Amino acid sequence: MDTALSEPASPVAAAGSTVVVCRALAASQHVTLGPLKLDCGVTLDAHRVAFRTYGTLNADKSNAVLICHALTMDQFVADPHPVTGKPGWGDTLVGPGRPIDPAKHFVICANVLGGCMGSTGPLDIRPGTSEPYNLSFPVVTIGDMVRAQAALLDHLGVESLFCVTGGSMGGMLVLQWAATYPERVFSAIPVATAARHSAQNIAFHEVGRQAIMADPEWHAGSYIKHGTRPARGLAVARMAAHITYLSEAALQRKFGRQLQGKDALGFGFDADFQVESYLHHQGKSFVERFDANAYLYITRAMDYFDLAAQHGGSLATAFRGSPTRFCLMSFTSDWLFPTAESREIVRALNSVAANVSFVEVESDKGHDAFLLDEPEMLRTLAGFLRGAGNARGLKP
Amino acid sequence: MDTALSEPASPVAAAGSTVVVCRALAASQHVTLGPLKLDCGVTLDAHRVAFRTYGTLNADKSNAVLICHALTMDQFVADPHPVTGKPGWGDTLVGPGRPIDPAKHFVICANVLGGCMGSTGPLDIRPGTSEPYNLSFPVVTIGDMVRAQAALLDHLGVESLFCVTGGSMGGMLVLQWAATYPERVFSAIPVATAARHSAQNIAFHEVGRQAIMADPEWHAGSYIKHGTRPARGLAVARMAAHITYLSEAALQRKFGRQLQGKDALGFGFDADFQVESYLHHQGKSFVERFDANAYLYITRAMDYFDLAAQHGGSLATAFRGSPTRFCLMSFTSDWLFPTAESREIVRALNSVAANVSFVEVESDKGHDAFLLDEPEMLRTLAGFLRGAGNARGLKP
Repeated sequence: MDTALSEPASPVAAAGSTVVVCRALAASQHVTLGPLKLDCGVTLDAHRVAFRTYGTLNADKSNAVLICHALTMDQFVADPHPVTGKPGWGDTLVGPGRPIDPAKHFVICANVLGGCMGSTGPLDIRPGTSEPYNLSFPVVTIGDMVRAQAALLDHLGVESLFCVTGGSMGGMLVLQWAATYPERVFSAIPVATAARHSAQNIAFHEVGRQAIMADPEWHAGSYIKHGTRPARGLAVARMAAHITYLSEAALQRKFGRQLQGKDALGFGFDADFQVESYLHHQGKSFVERFDANAYLYITRAMDYFDLAAQHGGSLATAFRGSPTRFCLMSFTSDWLFPTAESREIVRALNSVAANVSFVEVESDKGHDAFLLDEPEMLRTLAGFLRGAGNARGLKP
Repeated sequence: MDTALSEPASPVAAAGSTVVVCRALAASQHVTLGPLKLDCGVTLDAHRVAFRTYGTLNADKSNAVLICHALTMDQFVADPHPVTGKPGWGDTLVGPGRPIDPAKHFVICANVLGGCMGSTGPLDIRPGTSEPYNLSFPVVTIGDMVRAQAALLDHLGVESLFCVTGGSMGGMLVLQWAATYPERVFSAIPVATAARHSAQNIAFHEVGRQAIMADPEWHAGSYIKHGTRPARGLAVARMAAHITYLSEAALQRKFGRQLQGKDALGFGFDADFQVESYLHHQGKSFVERFDANAYLYITRAMDYFDLAAQHGGSLATAFRGSPTRFCLMSFTSDWLFPTAESREIVRALNSVAANVSFVEVESDKGHDAFLLDEPEMLRTLAGFLRGAGNARGLKP
């Protein structure tokens, strides 16, 4: 399966997804595991998991923290991204003196199944062929991603997690972890998430997928063979999604109607407003680090997520008898995963007398707040982890 | 300029924008007026206005009602659309026994300048050439659209409007009418609108424009010459926009996570969910009736709208001394033009002691509520128009 790992000769593809996965793997630990039976019915004989760890597993193996990344994030939670060179996406969360501290915790962050940062996904060479899977890769679910992570934990000798946490799609994985492996999850912190993807969110994802698939350079998913990239389609998908990550108030405060590098309207279709330039930049930089097919697969996994549906329509049933301590967080200005979605989870947990706390953090930064230096979020995380650490008998 | 009006021979283009404008003109009144000096500095020597009227101008010319349409609407407010055959977009608003009644009012609705339903826009043949303007059409503003409408009223012998009303972009035109021609506007009803386009709304428009311009069949705007249409790009633009017209609650109520014509997930990228099929339908039907370049121009006009900026940064100044009676309406679940935007206008009007009433209508239908059979909106409109009609001395 690792035949995909040599950097490609084609200069087009070299600027593309294949080189991204090569660099991601070079900067990661990775292991090939399997077999993995997927929700769609297909079994992957083998699957690679690319991951990063920070800190050391303690003697009684009680200090492991699994961090689950969001849609376009990756395993580089606390070190620089191998393509962009930017700091880890969670460097306010993980690090010395941070709520999750490698001096105390054994931190694990793995690229999700279906991703493009080294874990098995549509970029992998399809077994028995010399071509990438592309769209012949099976559609994976949040449940599949979690089972792949569980196999990684088995490999690492981690029977029980002190904590599993993540925001947005990461929060979906947290909920799935708690539902599927309650005995392996001592504490769980799902942030800015939902127990099922809403109609509006499915709709936004579908717009992004249609933008990608409308790009003739997508070639029905076979763009690597054609030496092309659906860069414009993927950029449009990212731009649309990016608006949903911010709040109207944040956009107004950051950009308002400020013009871009000139003092009068241009009466044309170039970027007149700063918010347009900002979006263009978001689209352009995204396509340099992400793969279009992986975007299709991961958005689809989110769309399919519905924890209640997995349990006969009852979300409470998903958590009945759970020994896990939960701490949920949402943000006042998050309209993608609004507080109401978190409250629904809290209500389900309360109805089965689970151990749950919930904080709605005041922020005008929209959904993206979960990735930012939000003091109230970080204080809440630190306090909850301190309490859970005491209960777990971790050294303070 | 009317050389563009014969139906084209090319079967591709015949399914396209040119045939739409031909059918629109065949079903409309139209007049060529001019010259028209535009805000960008260009003067159009002549411009065509395509419009519909309903009812009769009374003897003292006091019963004219101008209806301003929204971004993708047109002059067919109260009769069937010439391409889709669907009822007029405003048939709950205009008709016998409706708040605006051709038995009492002389109703005028004109396609905006820059549009694709018969008024001069990027589809028109550029004077002195045999090619459409395409992107050489000047970028027009809401102010330009209003001046074109004022020229139409001059042509129709309407000095003073009893009322000007419209929702969304139509509401922007209403505000511009009241600010530019206060003596010509007895009453004004801006619905679900704003005095300036917000950063978030500019961002959504830019995503739509980028989707169109990313489509290789757009050909830098010259798709008619190439016998193509940027149908996929325009459909993506429409799908993204359509989500913003609805509320999360309405999407959840209408579609939730209901599957499309089957009882299990498809584990693929076809439409699994009803909300996806609905969006696909919205995109597909839109490209049959609308022109991609016109979409670029009209969205740009909305982006450029900033009534305060036209008046030294003070919205109140735009309305100082206004004799107009205003009635504003917004909808509780409209997140595209939220109530806060209407309140800002109301505050500006109050600060100059204008005659203003304001109603926030309870609705879960999002921005689209202004186009729907919303009893409270229609009752408010009817009541306000009755009172204004008494003050104007109209027969009840």
